[in-house]
Amino acid sequence: MTPRPQLTRVHNFGVSLDGFATGEGRTLDAPFGHAGFRLHEWFFDTAMGREMQGRGPGGSRGVDNVYTETNWRDVGAEIMGRGKFGPQTGPWPDESWQGWWGDDPPFHTPVFVLTHHLRPSIEMAGGTTFHFRDASPADVLAEAQQAAGDLDVRIGGGPSTVREFLDADLIDHLHVVLVPVVLGRGVSLWAGQEALRERFDVEAVASPQGVIHLTFTRRA
Amino acid sequence: MTPRPQLTRVHNFGVSLDGFATGEGRTLDAPFGHAGFRLHEWFFDTAMGREMQGRGPGGSRGVDNVYTETNWRDVGAEIMGRGKFGPQTGPWPDESWQGWWGDDPPFHTPVFVLTHHLRPSIEMAGGTTFHFRDASPADVLAEAQQAAGDLDVRIGGGPSTVREFLDADLIDHLHVVLVPVVLGRGVSLWAGQEALRERFDVEAVASPQGVIHLTFTRRA
Repeated sequence: MTPRPQLTRVHNFGVSLDGFATGEGRTLDAPFGHAGFRLHEWFFDTAMGREMQGRGPGGSRGVDNVYTETNWRDVGAEIMGRGKFGPQTGPWPDESWQGWWGDDPPFHTPVFVLTHHLRPSIEMAGGTTFHFRDASPADVLAEAQQAAGDLDVRIGGGPSTVREFLDADLIDHLHVVLVPVVLGRGVSLWAGQEALRERFDVEAVASPQGVIHLTFTRRA
Repeated sequence: MTPRPQLTRVHNFGVSLDGFATGEGRTLDAPFGHAGFRLHEWFFDTAMGREMQGRGPGGSRGVDNVYTETNWRDVGAEIMGRGKFGPQTGPWPDESWQGWWGDDPPFHTPVFVLTHHLRPSIEMAGGTTFHFRDASPADVLAEAQQAAGDLDVRIGGGPSTVREFLDADLIDHLHVVLVPVVLGRGVSLWAGQEALRERFDVEAVASPQGVIHLTFTRRA
């Protein structure tokens, strides 16, 4: 049997009609800035969304849930930008901040946080360990692939991080959720990505609640 | 019987993932600038697209064709920006230019061209007459509605013209075709439209060839 190929994947990545994946003015209380949760509401009432929010059973099990769930399947490590770990920029004021994600983060794998400001790894409950790396996309991916064993590596965002990995041609699978709102400002997923369609095939599926799942698959 | 409401409609309006509805560098040979026909290819092989290009019968009759055809239904007048009439800017060098659209333009109705540089109306074959107006959206719409009789008025584009009519809250129905390409630069449909979803309901349908039809319907 051929060994399973190890993929580098992006999932559930919400983007507005004008291409922004996060808003402006990110703070502790507003992790997506002025965008609020408008790019994420689509999964709140899926079965997976309800489970993750501790809202108990129920929720839709249709197309939105099917896509949401793939985020958690066969992933052995995540790489994220510093903004997905916390709102701070520059040197860490202290090392008490352990991420937006609570005591039991949903990752349950090693997570590599890209930052120029290194600090010791943090071992959380449930199998999540945050490692801090100041490294190129290729180098941190090599380390994450090693950590993931036979499983895949998820690029968790934000948009600048995804773009860096696209620029380095390291993404195999990119799942974008187009949300039909106009944000006007923020951080674009598409900046500098004019050549995207030369490397990726794309498939579009609209969900009954009005978001569009775009799957970009890198050509073999 | 209640009289049919007279609607102001936009149809088949191609937009890239980064929100551009036309490219940069528009010339006589490149009516959409560097975008080429990437935002329009989706309808070339529909039955309506083949008919309009004089390529004879055949072509798809599925969802893309259904949407394309609505563009031509129950429309009694069109309003367009000057860029949809020709590539010239500033004063007309002469009046020999009669538009991109050939001797028998596809409109078959009065067409009001918005420009600061007026010139006499041009009566073409097949019922199309181009009128040149330097007027506010509300004023030119009032004139077009009168000309359309019982029928609707189409706002034909380009993106700046559509935005002016959105800003004046004069659009009832906006059909956008999201094409999953990244253009990087050009004229955005979404600039300044952050409040769009406060006034419009939206529905999304993906077509098998990978474009997404978004229908924005103004709330009653």
